[in-house]
Amino acid sequence: MRADVQRADAGALACALDSLAARFGNRLVRSQAVREQHAHTLSWLPRQPPDGVVFAQNTTDIQDVVRICARHKVPVIPYGTGTSLEGQVNAPAGGICIDMRDMNRLIAVHADDLDCVIEPGITRKTLNELLRDQGLFFPIDPGADASIGGMAATRASGTNAVRYGTMRDNVVAMKVVRADGAIVNTASRAKKSSAGYDLTRLFVGSEGTLGVIAELTIRLHGIPETIAAASCSFPTVDAACRATIMAIQTGIPLARIELLDEVQIKASNAYSKLSLPETTLLLLEFHGSDAEVAAQSERFGEIARDCGGGNFEWTTKAEDRTRLWQARHDAYWAARGIRPGTESVTTDVCVPISRLAECVTETQRDLRESRLVSPIVGHVGDGNFHTILLCDMTDADELRRAEGFLHRLVERAQAMDGTCTGEHGIGQGKQDYLKGELGPGAIETMRMLKRALDPDNIFNPGKILPPE
Amino acid sequence: MRADVQRADAGALACALDSLAARFGNRLVRSQAVREQHAHTLSWLPRQPPDGVVFAQNTTDIQDVVRICARHKVPVIPYGTGTSLEGQVNAPAGGICIDMRDMNRLIAVHADDLDCVIEPGITRKTLNELLRDQGLFFPIDPGADASIGGMAATRASGTNAVRYGTMRDNVVAMKVVRADGAIVNTASRAKKSSAGYDLTRLFVGSEGTLGVIAELTIRLHGIPETIAAASCSFPTVDAACRATIMAIQTGIPLARIELLDEVQIKASNAYSKLSLPETTLLLLEFHGSDAEVAAQSERFGEIARDCGGGNFEWTTKAEDRTRLWQARHDAYWAARGIRPGTESVTTDVCVPISRLAECVTETQRDLRESRLVSPIVGHVGDGNFHTILLCDMTDADELRRAEGFLHRLVERAQAMDGTCTGEHGIGQGKQDYLKGELGPGAIETMRMLKRALDPDNIFNPGKILPPE
Repeated sequence: MRADVQRADAGALACALDSLAARFGNRLVRSQAVREQHAHTLSWLPRQPPDGVVFAQNTTDIQDVVRICARHKVPVIPYGTGTSLEGQVNAPAGGICIDMRDMNRLIAVHADDLDCVIEPGITRKTLNELLRDQGLFFPIDPGADASIGGMAATRASGTNAVRYGTMRDNVVAMKVVRADGAIVNTASRAKKSSAGYDLTRLFVGSEGTLGVIAELTIRLHGIPETIAAASCSFPTVDAACRATIMAIQTGIPLARIELLDEVQIKASNAYSKLSLPETTLLLLEFHGSDAEVAAQSERFGEIARDCGGGNFEWTTKAEDRTRLWQARHDAYWAARGIRPGTESVTTDVCVPISRLAECVTETQRDLRESRLVSPIVGHVGDGNFHTILLCDMTDADELRRAEGFLHRLVERAQAMDGTCTGEHGIGQGKQDYLKGELGPGAIETMRMLKRALDPDNIFNPGKILPPE
Repeated sequence: MRADVQRADAGALACALDSLAARFGNRLVRSQAVREQHAHTLSWLPRQPPDGVVFAQNTTDIQDVVRICARHKVPVIPYGTGTSLEGQVNAPAGGICIDMRDMNRLIAVHADDLDCVIEPGITRKTLNELLRDQGLFFPIDPGADASIGGMAATRASGTNAVRYGTMRDNVVAMKVVRADGAIVNTASRAKKSSAGYDLTRLFVGSEGTLGVIAELTIRLHGIPETIAAASCSFPTVDAACRATIMAIQTGIPLARIELLDEVQIKASNAYSKLSLPETTLLLLEFHGSDAEVAAQSERFGEIARDCGGGNFEWTTKAEDRTRLWQARHDAYWAARGIRPGTESVTTDVCVPISRLAECVTETQRDLRESRLVSPIVGHVGDGNFHTILLCDMTDADELRRAEGFLHRLVERAQAMDGTCTGEHGIGQGKQDYLKGELGPGAIETMRMLKRALDPDNIFNPGKILPPE
């Protein structure tokens, strides 16, 4: 929470709520329970509920909420599933949350074009169930069953970004409601365009601070004929990273490549009753024809062996794939099992892959020296990794050490030409780091954009940009 | 040329030129010949030379030009190689051209990270020569040996965008000089990031209207172990498009897939002394290991045959690849050979691939009905195609018919959910079409961004945005 975010004027808020109640009836909900639910944050940031929640059913609803709130300078906070990790849905200045849960339609599928048009509230698992019959899927997988609108707003990615890219690459076009209630169509449905400024990419990752996403056209992919899973243990993080770099450089189209460090493996062995060697593990997935995934798996196996990897295994059988990946699927709950009763603080950084081994190894050393416990799990093909810090929130000294660690984690990544967040976003939690990463010119430029599109700062105030 | 772009005040311009002369000496050039060269446009737009050209050597030079020009509200036009097609380097309001020719250094190569840092004036062929020894290449190929800065500014793509993406996907980060002379670092060197607004994508494709690109970090790829080329004739455009869609849907990672229509093939047979069947031709390229490109070529061959394709041929031998692709390499000069003495007007549109056959076929019919001659060449995997209209500029009636045709071409693409330009940009030539494509909300939003970053409209005025 930042002290500098001012609440809306009480009278203005009351007027806005009256107008919203008249317009939306019982689709405006003000109960304490519902407001609290919409402040839910999966981080250690305090919960900051909005003053009311509107359940939108269509674009006109969104426009009307925005227009009413704009008239009274009351904040507007878009809400998908509340699974963001940096306080993106908190309402530090109060205001009106727009819940997209009911805007969950699949509007059109264009199978030949490999795209579909959706409402923002549809979740990725629901979408993929609806697409399966047509042999298509939407590949971005951030772990949680997040809404696609929320994933676009936070520029989400996840395990198979190494092959399919992030939300940046997979949104074709959007319909966005601007601060004056106008509709912005960001692009045509053409696969590529050089027609003017890239408005799509401007709104992707803007965390609801520039406009509200009302519709999306997203890229789809054919469900691969065959999926192979593989696993391989490595003596060191460095060896695992070298194998990853070599695999990418030789052009193996890895669909997923995940690193689990020794601490995570120990936790997974205990939690999931596995007997993995207690050292760095890489888990992989390959997508293609039978022949392709076989060739890719075997080529990776050779590279892994050259880098000192052992216990290399690969399979295309569904049940064996699940077994190989068990440690990754259960990673979060296995981590929680290390120190029952503590809170987990999940954060992420991303560095150029050449620096990844060094960054992870230094982070492991820092954890030991700080007497902290955190498994490390990484989307290693992108240079992106997560720490799952298990922290006793009642222990002031541990809390202080944890804060110091998280601060050094970001500074370490930035010192290696990396970023303070590869996929979780800035939200409330990482604002102080933006300037250190990009310098004052970039921050000022972001402010210019924010002021231009949202002069009264009604859209998700207190997010992304640090106080002036 | 648009009448509404006002020239800078004469006194202000004189003051700016004095300051620039004092700062840059003989690196400010005002000769008629050099000014004319910098207005060069490969379209039928009239040439509009700047008032002076500064040959920049480093970022500080760019900052100083921008600061001096900003003080006097004199336009600034960045210049790479002048190979843009929609008047992007013209100076309708006069002003100072910044020529990047001498800012052509390869600053750093990060082979493990598959990226490099460059100055904006380096051309793609020079860059690829410098990278070859390390087994790396930069894949974007718009045809011309353009500067990478110019390619970023216009969001260029070309024949292998179907596999490697466009400049949108291949710029990692940029250093940009803002209208107040400040430096904006748009991103870290991490492969992905969710840290704030996507400033990189904001400047990519902004055609010099929001800032001047002073440095770029771009993505590289490993030179493929083997390259296969293939060619196949089809009875109709529709059959060729169906084969393309099926190949993409089955996941064949086509590196290039180019369509040449019957008119182009006739021209190529005549110009390059070939004996291709005078019907629609697809030319393809596959990148990978020996086994991969063989499998891909053969899978495509089967699909092509299922769609009625004939004369399917594929090869990995360099001299045979050149022979198969001869018609594509010589396409422009072959087209010019159809009607010697006429001018050629090259334009592009892009539609969802499901509509491509229909769009190309209707365009061919329109050409016949308008008594015009234009071969069609398409990056068919992206739904993007070019017409090379051969026009007798001295024939007023033909000129009128040509203008009508070009107008209908764009409206046809837009009516099919497509865009008025897939890769050439808006420049001066396509401003009137932006609003029709995206609606007033998008245009107003682009204007808000332009005003926010360039309130005095000094950066490349008269480009992209239609007059208010």
